[in-house]
Amino acid sequence: MIARVIVTPKPVVNDPQGITVKQGLASLGFREVVDVRVGKYIEVNLEGSSEHEARQRVEAMCRQLLANHVIEDFRFDIEPEHKRR
Amino acid sequence: MIARVIVTPKPVVNDPQGITVKQGLASLGFREVVDVRVGKYIEVNLEGSSEHEARQRVEAMCRQLLANHVIEDFRFDIEPEHKRR
Repeated sequence: MIARVIVTPKPVVNDPQGITVKQGLASLGFREVVDVRVGKYIEVNLEGSSEHEARQRVEAMCRQLLANHVIEDFRFDIEPEHKRR
Repeated sequence: MIARVIVTPKPVVNDPQGITVKQGLASLGFREVVDVRVGKYIEVNLEGSSEHEARQRVEAMCRQLLANHVIEDFRFDIEPEHKRR
């Protein structure tokens, strides 16, 4: 079972990394870029358990470790098989 | 137009950040976690252009700045409307 977690800075929170990437893209000629936000992507490979249980466990992981809920949002998908994209 | 880019360490590359997260999860009691890989999630808001053109531009951004092709893979989706998830 693979969980694909995306953690992003909340919309109201400053994102200096995103600003830097935007400036970097602009200096490379990508002037159509209006805004960039940088977050984390976390792929968690889990053993056993049903999809329902995995969903609850991954939600708990996000709340306890993967995301800082004061400044970050998170979302995730669970992929039952072991096929990797 | 919003591009959602995911940059991950290549499977053969060591991922110390992933190992640390895995250990952190284990010490919190999430012992079902077999493996963790940590990558970047980059949301790029682009002006104008068609979806086809946006796809080519984002591909170029990834090659030139967003991903280090020696150690990282990237993939992305383009979302034509401005609805944010």
